[in-house]
Amino acid sequence: MAATGEQAAANGEQQPVEGQQPQDGEQVITPWDVTGGADGKIDYNKLVAQFGCQNIDAALVQRIERLTGRPAHPFLKRGIFFAHRDLKEVLDAYERGEPFYLYTGRGPSSEALHLGHLVPFMFTKWLQDAFKVPLVIQLTDDEKFLWRGLSVEEARRLARENAKDIVACGFDVRRTFIFSDFEYVGGAFYRNIARIQRCTPMNQVRGIFGFSMEDNIGKIAFPAVQAAPAFPDSFPHMFGERKDVRCLIPCAIDQDPYFRMTRDVAPRLGHHKTSLIESRFFPALQGESGKMSASDQNSAIFVSDTPKEIKSKVNKYAFSGGGTSVEEHRAKGANLDVDVSWKWLNFFMEDDAKLAQIGEEYGSGRMLTGEIKAELIAVLTEMVERHKKARAAVTDEILDAFMAVRPMPWDQMYG
Amino acid sequence: MAATGEQAAANGEQQPVEGQQPQDGEQVITPWDVTGGADGKIDYNKLVAQFGCQNIDAALVQRIERLTGRPAHPFLKRGIFFAHRDLKEVLDAYERGEPFYLYTGRGPSSEALHLGHLVPFMFTKWLQDAFKVPLVIQLTDDEKFLWRGLSVEEARRLARENAKDIVACGFDVRRTFIFSDFEYVGGAFYRNIARIQRCTPMNQVRGIFGFSMEDNIGKIAFPAVQAAPAFPDSFPHMFGERKDVRCLIPCAIDQDPYFRMTRDVAPRLGHHKTSLIESRFFPALQGESGKMSASDQNSAIFVSDTPKEIKSKVNKYAFSGGGTSVEEHRAKGANLDVDVSWKWLNFFMEDDAKLAQIGEEYGSGRMLTGEIKAELIAVLTEMVERHKKARAAVTDEILDAFMAVRPMPWDQMYG
Repeated sequence: MAATGEQAAANGEQQPVEGQQPQDGEQVITPWDVTGGADGKIDYNKLVAQFGCQNIDAALVQRIERLTGRPAHPFLKRGIFFAHRDLKEVLDAYERGEPFYLYTGRGPSSEALHLGHLVPFMFTKWLQDAFKVPLVIQLTDDEKFLWRGLSVEEARRLARENAKDIVACGFDVRRTFIFSDFEYVGGAFYRNIARIQRCTPMNQVRGIFGFSMEDNIGKIAFPAVQAAPAFPDSFPHMFGERKDVRCLIPCAIDQDPYFRMTRDVAPRLGHHKTSLIESRFFPALQGESGKMSASDQNSAIFVSDTPKEIKSKVNKYAFSGGGTSVEEHRAKGANLDVDVSWKWLNFFMEDDAKLAQIGEEYGSGRMLTGEIKAELIAVLTEMVERHKKARAAVTDEILDAFMAVRPMPWDQMYG
Repeated sequence: MAATGEQAAANGEQQPVEGQQPQDGEQVITPWDVTGGADGKIDYNKLVAQFGCQNIDAALVQRIERLTGRPAHPFLKRGIFFAHRDLKEVLDAYERGEPFYLYTGRGPSSEALHLGHLVPFMFTKWLQDAFKVPLVIQLTDDEKFLWRGLSVEEARRLARENAKDIVACGFDVRRTFIFSDFEYVGGAFYRNIARIQRCTPMNQVRGIFGFSMEDNIGKIAFPAVQAAPAFPDSFPHMFGERKDVRCLIPCAIDQDPYFRMTRDVAPRLGHHKTSLIESRFFPALQGESGKMSASDQNSAIFVSDTPKEIKSKVNKYAFSGGGTSVEEHRAKGANLDVDVSWKWLNFFMEDDAKLAQIGEEYGSGRMLTGEIKAELIAVLTEMVERHKKARAAVTDEILDAFMAVRPMPWDQMYG
């Protein structure tokens, strides 16, 4: 996965999809490029219409609460995971007692994850706990190798480093298999990759991903590698040869093109169509129109940042929707639509009542930008420090347990 | 490998290389298509010039005899293996006591091998025995899956069936690793595949192989899978992480495009340029201009054919260069340039003196077509019956021993 949960990947080497060149005011969303429209903002309604997925409505959220017996995760309640494909089919199957599994991933291109990277993993953990289902997490070290200048060894190293951050999100080892492509491609997984490749002409990946004649042949073949984990028989140590286990993918909506392709292929190979639950992008500190970049340390908060760095970055860089003067702010209030502190609190402040109160206070101008930033700094600092503690506890042995190709008993995966 | 040693592969689904469309009288040689020139014949001198490889001259053959202390194999003496790339570099290295290994392969698309398929394996066995070097044999079941309609399971089954015929050629299990892609792709091998893919733009495989936008992305990526066994660190159980072991590939010259690409990539990945020793095509019974086809049982002798079938096929179909009447034949003699029985005897009759005598007798018209066909039938029947006996002795256990990914001690591989 290229840019899971992050507003815009840093790989400018990727051509935008043909026919989707960023013309004046046109938004461009691909797995490698996220550019807002004329106003710098992402029009998610337009995206849903363009991609052909569905919005998640209140009834669907309530159904998830009813089925799991749990209050919905804030990401669901607040419309951060806002779109889906065939989510109802997965819930119907769950209700009938039929198994499904979760699949998500990460393209390991940076030393440490930033908060945007955590979003799909935090939500996936909630889904795993709520539905008591197994999960596969793909680390696409091969993708990062093929797209970027780094060596095989460096890509593998980053995969392991990132995997420790992922494990620190609290996944259940009895239900979770984490793998890197450079380690796991082969056997049943490779055979599924070949099956998907045979169904996929060059024309199609050019249309979906914008690949050109200058792109290397590994890139061109790669979409099949990201598609294959959506089929349960890619994991014989988990599902044997079963093809009937449904797959639900939590991901940022920029990954949708990969899984449109996957869904197209699935029935031809005797699988259910993959279901998706898709999130908005996590904005850069500089705002929705800003480019988040792994090479620009100041556009994101990393899970390795110190409290001092967090405080300094938020205070310096978090784009403010507040007035240009205290007087103006008190009079007009803050523009919550563009305020990054407010947006980030919507992701990470768990207390609904407190969040609503902040929105009210800040939006009306009673609360100042400095004050909402202080709230955000407190939330992020607590969250990052908690993550650091959890990550420090992830030894190589613990990581190896998650990454081992081992028999995973059904009653433990689903018990 | 697509068409190793066989005049023309049966896969008409492959587009000829762009700019190499068979124009009037133009020969076309690709891994998937072998078409002679205006006279139906292959102009090998032209091919050598076009591909940029070298002819094997008498001095080179003598050097091989001197280095190995053995008389050259008939395929070498008779110019059947007639061209090379950097063969001298391998011989120089051998003389300096530096290691090299052999790599050849087979695309498993038919139940049984035919005699053309045996040519590279017979020669490779001789090279292995003469130089006492290890050998890897790639069964490209993934390639056949990607190019043809068969299932993964059928491709894997054919790979094992074909492997038994290959083992029956007499390879030394201590020096030989046979693998199918569907079994072995992964780990160090997959990492080399990705390294090769990153060096290879779509443009380049279009130029070399003629891939088009309609081709599936597995085909487009496949050349890297055939290239990777040319690098020793694709086989850690044999060579550890050594990159300095040279590779010599015996193959039919239609495979040259794959290895031009491989040689291009090799130095960029820190490897020696792959060396090649390349054979002419084994003609179809119907003659050099005829299309040999796996689906046309009558164009080839299979290693599973009965003596009766061999006799019948040779008598019925082997294209004759003899006169149209006995009188004409006695007067003018046979045209050895087009006579298939004569060509096949050149491949398979070991006795140089007897072969020369037959050429003399038949070429002058003293020997009749029926008589040379009888000689050929005797040679082929003996050869096929010997092969059948050897193949019957290849149990699943023996095959598993060749195909096991097991530590292969250096002193056994080179001892």
